[in-house]
Amino acid sequence: MASAEGSKLWGGRFVGDTDPVMEKFNASIAYDQRMWDADIRGSKAYVKALEKAKLVTAHEMEQILQGMDQISEEWSKGVFVIKPGDEDIHTANERRLKELIGAPAGKLHTGRSRNDQVVTDMRLWLRDAISTLTEHALQLISTMVERAAAEIDVLLPGYTHMQRAQPIRWSHWILSHAVALSRDVDRLSEIKRRVNVLPLGSGAIAGTPFDIDRELLQKELAFGGLSLNSLDATGQRDFVVEFLFWASLCLTHLSKMAEDLMLYSTKEFSFITLSDAYSTGSSLMPQKKNPDSLELIRSKAGRVFGRCAGFMMTLKGLPSTYNKDLQEDKEAMFDCYDTVHAVLQVTTGVMSTLKIHQSVMEAALSPDMLATDLAYYLVRKGVPFREAHSISGKAVFAAESKSVSLNQLTVEDLAAVSPHFGGDVSSVWDYSSSVEQYAAAGGTAKRSVAAQVEHLRNWVKAQTRL
Amino acid sequence: MASAEGSKLWGGRFVGDTDPVMEKFNASIAYDQRMWDADIRGSKAYVKALEKAKLVTAHEMEQILQGMDQISEEWSKGVFVIKPGDEDIHTANERRLKELIGAPAGKLHTGRSRNDQVVTDMRLWLRDAISTLTEHALQLISTMVERAAAEIDVLLPGYTHMQRAQPIRWSHWILSHAVALSRDVDRLSEIKRRVNVLPLGSGAIAGTPFDIDRELLQKELAFGGLSLNSLDATGQRDFVVEFLFWASLCLTHLSKMAEDLMLYSTKEFSFITLSDAYSTGSSLMPQKKNPDSLELIRSKAGRVFGRCAGFMMTLKGLPSTYNKDLQEDKEAMFDCYDTVHAVLQVTTGVMSTLKIHQSVMEAALSPDMLATDLAYYLVRKGVPFREAHSISGKAVFAAESKSVSLNQLTVEDLAAVSPHFGGDVSSVWDYSSSVEQYAAAGGTAKRSVAAQVEHLRNWVKAQTRL
Amino acid sequence: MASAEGSKLWGGRFVGDTDPVMEKFNASIAYDQRMWDADIRGSKAYVKALEKAKLVTAHEMEQILQGMDQISEEWSKGVFVIKPGDEDIHTANERRLKELIGAPAGKLHTGRSRNDQVVTDMRLWLRDAISTLTEHALQLISTMVERAAAEIDVLLPGYTHMQRAQPIRWSHWILSHAVALSRDVDRLSEIKRRVNVLPLGSGAIAGTPFDIDRELLQKELAFGGLSLNSLDATGQRDFVVEFLFWASLCLTHLSKMAEDLMLYSTKEFSFITLSDAYSTGSSLMPQKKNPDSLELIRSKAGRVFGRCAGFMMTLKGLPSTYNKDLQEDKEAMFDCYDTVHAVLQVTTGVMSTLKIHQSVMEAALSPDMLATDLAYYLVRKGVPFREAHSISGKAVFAAESKSVSLNQLTVEDLAAVSPHFGGDVSSVWDYSSSVEQYAAAGGTAKRSVAAQVEHLRNWVKAQTRL
Amino acid sequence: MASAEGSKLWGGRFVGDTDPVMEKFNASIAYDQRMWDADIRGSKAYVKALEKAKLVTAHEMEQILQGMDQISEEWSKGVFVIKPGDEDIHTANERRLKELIGAPAGKLHTGRSRNDQVVTDMRLWLRDAISTLTEHALQLISTMVERAAAEIDVLLPGYTHMQRAQPIRWSHWILSHAVALSRDVDRLSEIKRRVNVLPLGSGAIAGTPFDIDRELLQKELAFGGLSLNSLDATGQRDFVVEFLFWASLCLTHLSKMAEDLMLYSTKEFSFITLSDAYSTGSSLMPQKKNPDSLELIRSKAGRVFGRCAGFMMTLKGLPSTYNKDLQEDKEAMFDCYDTVHAVLQVTTGVMSTLKIHQSVMEAALSPDMLATDLAYYLVRKGVPFREAHSISGKAVFAAESKSVSLNQLTVEDLAAVSPHFGGDVSSVWDYSSSVEQYAAAGGTAKRSVAAQVEHLRNWVKAQTRL
Repeated sequence: MASAEGSKLWGGRFVGDTDPVMEKFNASIAYDQRMWDADIRGSKAYVKALEKAKLVTAHEMEQILQGMDQISEEWSKGVFVIKPGDEDIHTANERRLKELIGAPAGKLHTGRSRNDQVVTDMRLWLRDAISTLTEHALQLISTMVERAAAEIDVLLPGYTHMQRAQPIRWSHWILSHAVALSRDVDRLSEIKRRVNVLPLGSGAIAGTPFDIDRELLQKELAFGGLSLNSLDATGQRDFVVEFLFWASLCLTHLSKMAEDLMLYSTKEFSFITLSDAYSTGSSLMPQKKNPDSLELIRSKAGRVFGRCAGFMMTLKGLPSTYNKDLQEDKEAMFDCYDTVHAVLQVTTGVMSTLKIHQSVMEAALSPDMLATDLAYYLVRKGVPFREAHSISGKAVFAAESKSVSLNQLTVEDLAAVSPHFGGDVSSVWDYSSSVEQYAAAGGTAKRSVAAQVEHLRNWVKAQTRL
Repeated sequence: MASAEGSKLWGGRFVGDTDPVMEKFNASIAYDQRMWDADIRGSKAYVKALEKAKLVTAHEMEQILQGMDQISEEWSKGVFVIKPGDEDIHTANERRLKELIGAPAGKLHTGRSRNDQVVTDMRLWLRDAISTLTEHALQLISTMVERAAAEIDVLLPGYTHMQRAQPIRWSHWILSHAVALSRDVDRLSEIKRRVNVLPLGSGAIAGTPFDIDRELLQKELAFGGLSLNSLDATGQRDFVVEFLFWASLCLTHLSKMAEDLMLYSTKEFSFITLSDAYSTGSSLMPQKKNPDSLELIRSKAGRVFGRCAGFMMTLKGLPSTYNKDLQEDKEAMFDCYDTVHAVLQVTTGVMSTLKIHQSVMEAALSPDMLATDLAYYLVRKGVPFREAHSISGKAVFAAESKSVSLNQLTVEDLAAVSPHFGGDVSSVWDYSSSVEQYAAAGGTAKRSVAAQVEHLRNWVKAQTRL
Repeated sequence: MASAEGSKLWGGRFVGDTDPVMEKFNASIAYDQRMWDADIRGSKAYVKALEKAKLVTAHEMEQILQGMDQISEEWSKGVFVIKPGDEDIHTANERRLKELIGAPAGKLHTGRSRNDQVVTDMRLWLRDAISTLTEHALQLISTMVERAAAEIDVLLPGYTHMQRAQPIRWSHWILSHAVALSRDVDRLSEIKRRVNVLPLGSGAIAGTPFDIDRELLQKELAFGGLSLNSLDATGQRDFVVEFLFWASLCLTHLSKMAEDLMLYSTKEFSFITLSDAYSTGSSLMPQKKNPDSLELIRSKAGRVFGRCAGFMMTLKGLPSTYNKDLQEDKEAMFDCYDTVHAVLQVTTGVMSTLKIHQSVMEAALSPDMLATDLAYYLVRKGVPFREAHSISGKAVFAAESKSVSLNQLTVEDLAAVSPHFGGDVSSVWDYSSSVEQYAAAGGTAKRSVAAQVEHLRNWVKAQTRL
Repeated sequence: MASAEGSKLWGGRFVGDTDPVMEKFNASIAYDQRMWDADIRGSKAYVKALEKAKLVTAHEMEQILQGMDQISEEWSKGVFVIKPGDEDIHTANERRLKELIGAPAGKLHTGRSRNDQVVTDMRLWLRDAISTLTEHALQLISTMVERAAAEIDVLLPGYTHMQRAQPIRWSHWILSHAVALSRDVDRLSEIKRRVNVLPLGSGAIAGTPFDIDRELLQKELAFGGLSLNSLDATGQRDFVVEFLFWASLCLTHLSKMAEDLMLYSTKEFSFITLSDAYSTGSSLMPQKKNPDSLELIRSKAGRVFGRCAGFMMTLKGLPSTYNKDLQEDKEAMFDCYDTVHAVLQVTTGVMSTLKIHQSVMEAALSPDMLATDLAYYLVRKGVPFREAHSISGKAVFAAESKSVSLNQLTVEDLAAVSPHFGGDVSSVWDYSSSVEQYAAAGGTAKRSVAAQVEHLRNWVKAQTRL
């Protein structure tokens, strides 16, 4: 017992036994070891502040720095050995430091608490994670934008309510999703700004009573600012929930795109074919080729939102400052990161390899999708839109009654519906002309779509420069 | 590539490469290997049905059964080797079977699909898991009931709105939580009934075209019934979400109890002291003894509800039958099981080891908590309750104005508030008499509480007999 | 102010002002007035218990009963006037009673608390609500079962992963959803059993100190049992969250069916046409006919789960017994009821009026959907299934390579893939024969589907008898 | 029927009846009428763009503007009459316009769809709502900051894990919550930027084919930018979910503060007393004074997060562009606004009126809370922190064993634990000196807290200037 107790950070006081289920329940090393690098970086910065405050000597600082470097190497090489009693990454690294350098290791935690240490580690880790996700998101957006640029002449039906609505450009569809993702990148950069704030120096709750130079720490660890209040700094996890929610909203966007693509890849639509690399087969049905990649993308929105919901529920009603409940933060953060990390890459793969069937897409355009244009034809002849809409509706009904398509109504048929129709109505029935009308900013005309491509290219470049 | 492809179940058709990120994204072996035993049991039953249907010979059946037993032993001993291409437990076991017995292994999957196989495995696994959780829950309830029986004479303040309300028995408090847990056990047994339904024989979607005797399968695997519709059988995960929600509601009950206990273990209340085994210290503050066990219990309600929310969101709006999105079912199920499994045991530990401070509890009773009884004193003298309530309120106000406690008001003071007060009012100020009045079923009088103890003891016995 | 104060139930003590925003924030009358009838029924039963306990005279009881009947009539006729100070339905009814009968009204609340009163009201209300929902659910199931019986000969593609999988009966599809709904009805009846428990007589927390005959109350209000513990009785809302989750799971089932139907009603599938009564048009596009009913059904799963998530989060971490937070229970309960109530009716309307296009459904069957049957053809010739699956996959590939459909491969083509193919392979290419093979329980063969119809008809009858 | 049909926007085509349940299910007028003003503002701007595009004459524009002004007045005065067929606010206003000005009303909707109209209205509405919430949040923060400034000399125990940790300033506690709220205001301003983007001119899906000057619209409606892609503009609700999540996180902060205050207002803590204006009594227990305001604040975090969860679940897996499911956006948005609006005001009321009990707070400080300082005393004598922490823990244990408080250990007692203790240890036992040590930025020393006050005062001023 004594030896086991000895390896716990609170060492001196406890006399009872612990329950092994409780030990495991309490320990976080199984997952927080993932932050080993952040923990070491944080400690290396901290010992410099200790030295400046004369709480360690220059020599002790060197010993600690070198010890930390060695621990870093052990982790890198996968040879670090976790021992019983290493309940978390902080304990493990400090325990190892003591083995390596002896007594001076006992000075590292001076004026620091796990409460400020753990959030410092998390912020360092998440800052890097956000950079990685930003890169992957930009790569996906670029892939989509370039595909949109290349396939700008392809038309397909635009849908609302899953019903054919109006002809649009395939590129316009692609860009609608790229634009949503660009908002995700914007939001992520805002979150990063709030992640990038240093809590170290807040102690457990009250701050630090030593001359710890927090600005030195900030500089060493390249943080953008200092936390304002030590109670808040150690007890808040806003930066985690912001990230969890960000992941949820981002994946909701990709679930939407995946749903579209799944529709388009049904036999019935046949607009696209997924690469085999992103499809799988059936253990029973030899002919099946399933869009598993898309289904997984769609499903993950649920998973990450569940993490967000779970952690929000954990936070709700907690009293302030550090409570052990906050330990739920890390698994949620890691899982959301891993999930979005994979989803962005798989989606990039899907989008860069899928084949489109232009002729099928264009064959799916039908004259009734121009009923709005038919109404606009009347508007241009001075018919108030409400009336024009009604007349066009009657024309649709007339065509259905005659079992012909809308453009097969004769001028006489149309004249029976409204005297405003003339021979020039035939000009309406051209899909290419139709889309070219929608030339206002954001519309589906070629120059509007090309302007979107240009806008997003520039935006991506600007992001990359940041 | 050819060899890698060869190990995939859909083997014959795909020609493209797969993306390693996609491979990992798609694979479930990392977590579904946990169902190895259920998978083997399911296959052993299935081969018996194949033999009865003459789709394998008796000899082939024996080979498969023996092979499966050997695989089972490998898993048990921890020597089963997962190979590249083993994307899930079903593939892994079948791949290994082929290595062990050769050609006949290729007959095992006849008429079966992973779609019906996986839900059969999950139902077998969850059925056992539910039995285990039921046992742990009953153990916790028993612990609580016996503690309530032993400490029935201890009084403490009952709170509403976190404010002192009326004196109650400590045992009455314990039992209020035990009763909630008994409903959880009831609900879990209802869910078990719905889990315990055999889907095998449903194929991928349409059923089975062979003479697979589903009743034989049911008997072999000890299921309580057969699924009614093959599309529903393979495409629904109600039994999983029911379990996830069960876990959420159960842990909400324990979060409530944990919150009470955390309050009671603050320095300010000091009603209880947690065993050191369920407390931890601080890396910074030497005097701290933190109720980490309780905080973790409280937090886990969020975690499991997050799993429930996540999976519900994944299910929402899916089309029917199997979609790959359903793969999210297993991690959620395992995590909720593990969490509740640990929480129940830790809570049992906490409840069986915590010390109560009877004198502190009783010292916290104060005369104003008998203001309701004071009103009832008046009711018994014929004053309508509304008036009595108002008079008692005025007495409370009078005591506050005089800065004395309610029972220190003189008969004259009280008479100034209402002429109904007489010398016999002094009988009101006895906490033990007070609680003994509340003798209706469910109340806090000793015999009511004893009856609750008896009821729950019998209920636990009845459950154990099931 | 004094008079306003006078109308509050706690009347005697408060001296400060209240903030109008706080008043509104605190009041529940805006929504809990909906339980006026349950509140009156509860009070009428309670006064009988008071009379038996000699806390009111027979005459006072009569006055109260008659007063309550008059209040009931006022609510029925829509003439009940809510006054300032009526913060909830309980206060409003009691205030009105006092206006009508004077002093004896002040005796009604003797030994009762709003804590036990409000849950009694809620349980009465929800019990009725559950009966109504059960009826609507059974009506929907019946509609579906009868439609399945009538259209049993119609085939369509069965899908997995939104890809064509195997031919199935349209009725088999309908019944897969009906079976899910039948589980919802089962679950609802279990919940009803737990709702149908009387908490009255629990007071605020400690029970009742008077001779209130709880069994008389139970009998008067037709409850199935008595609550066991007064703290639990007044502080738990399990019955509400169970209902909220029930609504969520039920609507997830309907979201799944709606998603299928939306797919089937796209132009691309064209399997069904929704009645105009359940469709709407576009304010812009004259040709549009949108399946708004289905979209709303799909969306509502989110809404009700949000209510469930919200209330679960509110409950999490609360201390035990009544806390004002519980006031969130009612709006959630009402909203989920209203939503499911509407959804079930709209779905019944949709399912009873939609038109199916049998020829389109059957034209969507394609020979590659029989690739599994082709493998089974080989299995029946003794080829192990894994090999047969691989061979069939190669045949599919061969057909794709030749750009013919699978059934257009010549015997020579097939023989090149495997020597097991013979002239009798032509028998495979018949969709009707194909489905008839799937004759095991739950399968898509006619007699299996007819057995499902029969099973559900009997089940519905049994439910109705309950 | 004909006349009812006539009042629907899609007028010309439908021939079937509609189900009254479906009608109600489909209609949004019950709640979206709340956007009447935004709808009118949007239409007034739009008609100016129509006039510029020569789609209406200057005279017609005037008629429409005047008609709209009259409708606005009717709404303002509460005399606008909703008629059957007014399924939403857009239909209602246009129907009324037609009644008022006749034929020209039929031109207003030219080139516009309800799809772009409704999101324009929502963005206008939410932009104003955000301004209001920002003001209320700033008022709350100011109240807190000024209270912190005024009561800076009050000490109380700082807690972690709900256990006494270290002495802190009351103002430090207040500011920890104010800092969290200041992040909420920051986030809200970021959201506002994304709300403040004009979608009008996107039509249903494809954009507008007329010369609608979108920049004119932007200017008229004072938007900060134009939507980039018409599909995205009409089909995305990011701005709504961002707001719903913002509300959730903000209320989680207030739930945390409320939980603290509820603890502090228990009899056992007695640190604060809530104003009567924010408390309520009990219908049963005359002595009760319940912190209902705080409980409601705590509960609302659940409610709003439920709205967020519900709408996120509704969005998940939807295909792109407008689907009727999106109609769930408005009730969620309104409810979250109303809830946060009330909560901020009630919290301001609570915080500005509660009384603190300084002597009770300070009496709750105990010498063991200085155990960390005792360790630091040793650190300053050169003892490595780990050893110092252990020694201090042993001193705590020694005091507990002797049943004295930590500061009552004699120098001999302490020397038995460690030779480093000397007579100067007595300087440790001063709470005021203790807190003054924590002088690094963010700490609890007076000048650190004063700096926080100053920082937040300046920040509030800067916000107000925006």
